[in-house]
Amino acid sequence: MKVPFKTVSGSIVAPQGFLASGVFCDIKRLGTGKGSDKGRKRDLALIVSTMPATVAGLFTTNQVCAAPVKVCLERVKTGVAQAIVVNSGNANACTGRQGYRDALAMTELAAAPFHLPSEQVLVASTGRIGVPLPMANVRAGIAAAAQLLGDDAAHAAEATEAIMTSDTRPKQIAVEFKLGGQTVRLGGICKGAGMIQPGMSATGARPSATPLHATMLAFLTTDASVAAGTLQACLQEAVAQSFNRITVDGDMSTNDTVLILANGAADNPQLRHPNAQTRKTELSTFQAALNHVCLELAKKIVRDGEGVTRFVTVRVSGARTFAEADAAARAVANSALVKTSWCGGDPNWGRIIDALGYSAATVVEEQVDIGYSAPGGRAVLWSLRRGQPTRATFKLLCAAVAAKEFDLHIRLNLGKAGAVMYAADLTEAYVDFNKGDVNDPASLGG
Amino acid sequence: MKVPFKTVSGSIVAPQGFLASGVFCDIKRLGTGKGSDKGRKRDLALIVSTMPATVAGLFTTNQVCAAPVKVCLERVKTGVAQAIVVNSGNANACTGRQGYRDALAMTELAAAPFHLPSEQVLVASTGRIGVPLPMANVRAGIAAAAQLLGDDAAHAAEATEAIMTSDTRPKQIAVEFKLGGQTVRLGGICKGAGMIQPGMSATGARPSATPLHATMLAFLTTDASVAAGTLQACLQEAVAQSFNRITVDGDMSTNDTVLILANGAADNPQLRHPNAQTRKTELSTFQAALNHVCLELAKKIVRDGEGVTRFVTVRVSGARTFAEADAAARAVANSALVKTSWCGGDPNWGRIIDALGYSAATVVEEQVDIGYSAPGGRAVLWSLRRGQPTRATFKLLCAAVAAKEFDLHIRLNLGKAGAVMYAADLTEAYVDFNKGDVNDPASLGG
Repeated sequence: MKVPFKTVSGSIVAPQGFLASGVFCDIKRLGTGKGSDKGRKRDLALIVSTMPATVAGLFTTNQVCAAPVKVCLERVKTGVAQAIVVNSGNANACTGRQGYRDALAMTELAAAPFHLPSEQVLVASTGRIGVPLPMANVRAGIAAAAQLLGDDAAHAAEATEAIMTSDTRPKQIAVEFKLGGQTVRLGGICKGAGMIQPGMSATGARPSATPLHATMLAFLTTDASVAAGTLQACLQEAVAQSFNRITVDGDMSTNDTVLILANGAADNPQLRHPNAQTRKTELSTFQAALNHVCLELAKKIVRDGEGVTRFVTVRVSGARTFAEADAAARAVANSALVKTSWCGGDPNWGRIIDALGYSAATVVEEQVDIGYSAPGGRAVLWSLRRGQPTRATFKLLCAAVAAKEFDLHIRLNLGKAGAVMYAADLTEAYVDFNKGDVNDPASLGG
Repeated sequence: MKVPFKTVSGSIVAPQGFLASGVFCDIKRLGTGKGSDKGRKRDLALIVSTMPATVAGLFTTNQVCAAPVKVCLERVKTGVAQAIVVNSGNANACTGRQGYRDALAMTELAAAPFHLPSEQVLVASTGRIGVPLPMANVRAGIAAAAQLLGDDAAHAAEATEAIMTSDTRPKQIAVEFKLGGQTVRLGGICKGAGMIQPGMSATGARPSATPLHATMLAFLTTDASVAAGTLQACLQEAVAQSFNRITVDGDMSTNDTVLILANGAADNPQLRHPNAQTRKTELSTFQAALNHVCLELAKKIVRDGEGVTRFVTVRVSGARTFAEADAAARAVANSALVKTSWCGGDPNWGRIIDALGYSAATVVEEQVDIGYSAPGGRAVLWSLRRGQPTRATFKLLCAAVAAKEFDLHIRLNLGKAGAVMYAADLTEAYVDFNKGDVNDPASLGG
């Protein structure tokens, strides 16, 4: 379905009625030595709607989940929120009761300047695990962020910078489309880099036995009017096809969080389903826009993963069930040997079929097809058909995987189910970054 | 239980009645340019018993399994064998019907010089997947190996070299002990390096839903007299505690194989269980010796894994069930972030508890203990107790993980089950080796 939406600037402040800011408050306590830029990256963001909004959220299914996730899990259930406060540099995970109190305190500090009930403020954190939040710094940061709110693209960019950790690039997007005769906008920002294989659900409970595994954070805003339940259903569908289908290193974080605020400032008739026939198109339009925004943000996370040099879309089809297709795609996308072969530009189908064979999917060697195409392309260069090497030359196959981005097509030819994973190569730079330097504890990742 | 066995030299030819050889027949078809040592590593080994032996074996549970594995799966069932032929440089996996015919032909070629039925010859391969075996080279190699058999340590060393791929060191061991009044010997050789997380079973069928995941090959010989069924039971117990508990990179190979031949040349009363009371001690002695040999060989594989600089024994206890303990240990042992932190000497318990939290094991953050000790040591330096950081200083913890070998202790404190994994760090050298060089296809791994 073609959806008539266009890309606009301003990400989370592109929709009407949203303000954002990002400040530096030295959450990593690096010191603020004059002349040093290193410690000056913004590390606290505030996103505020000028009016109450409906809210939906999805959270890590890691059994060890951070204090801010615990707070959000409760508050999203109410369906109403008006602000989100986010810090980077410290995950506030494995910080016990004090950590939970600190997460609550962050919402109170962010609520006070706007005279909001703190229950309508959501909170997220990302960074090192197991270190108490430096609350004096956080307090100063929130106070500054509340003063510096703005509704222009520069403010959104500052908020985007403030949620980054090992990200090398800010990740943001906004689109505009028509809904019930009104012009509506939907924007988002996100961060990723390492510990990236999200498996988020609305309740923190695992959706299935499938091992789902960043800290990734994504914050979405829209001026569409959407009922809370509908917003949650739409978000779940969008995340299932985007953030929950990416992997950088196969590690699922304690902090993964996606939140969306819908403040209704666009004045469209409220989306609510199930509902009258006329709304189906509108719901589809909103869903398509949300899917697009989430998928573009999710892909940006993979492309900017730690040390990543290649972006590979793993497309499994012909599995007996979706769970098997998913298991097959994840086994390939997370295989150290497959990922290093991508790094080297080696079209090594032996490692791919090996990973398929040990996955939880049913695989029959004599049925497996493996091939490559350009991103989204239909012209597939097959390296393996029905378990047998094709006549495609090594040189041609090397050319196919030399591209910075390509699609890997796997057909199991046993059924009708399929699954897609957006994956990355494993590089020396990933290892170098994550091994850190114990003589420089600030270099050690979360 | 203290077992009175001593280490002896000669590995697979230490037991009476065994001969071995290892030759170069250019299976990688590198050419044999004069003056080049590179292509001269031995690549074909032969192990022969001078009398019929009972046999037991365990094989990869990868659904995509190599032709030699298929041949062995059938033949081990007969319980009798007398020779093993092994090549490196080519896995003979994903090679279709021709591959299966080639594996059979290898056994025929090895059987002929000794006038054995080919059904009593077993076969194993390791190397690149998906390339047909160069049978002219293999034929010449087997003929040469059959001529060059010997029963001294030098011949065993040549066989050991011939099964190596990316291994940097030969791996061999032999022990001597008393059984039924006779002096008995048990020896073994193995290879590993990459694609190492074996999950082997006797039938190739998966023992459980637990994801078990090297090409690792191990060949054991003993002059003890052991009934085939007893030998299989003993081997299963030994492998469950050794080869099936190691991981280098989490990838399970298409070729993993462990074989043992017991030729009875020591003339002990045959071990057979269930049996009379008097034999229990003897069976325990044999089992203990086999456990020791398998565990020492398995550890050698991890220590010599591709790029490995640190050897970590992950000890999980207090899980609700063995399956959960196993899942917890494997999640930690295979986490890219945990493994890179080991590489960097970073005592990052946050990444460890994160991996526990997304594992299939039940984990309660507030119950988890994490600590370090010297290998096998009882003095544990705890970094986390009941989910809370201890007062152990960062400096002390760094010292604990700076060692080349250490134990990681994880107590879930929810039950009584435990599991151990022998694991390795993830280094830039692993990535560099496995990304290979597409301009030098011979550098590309299996």
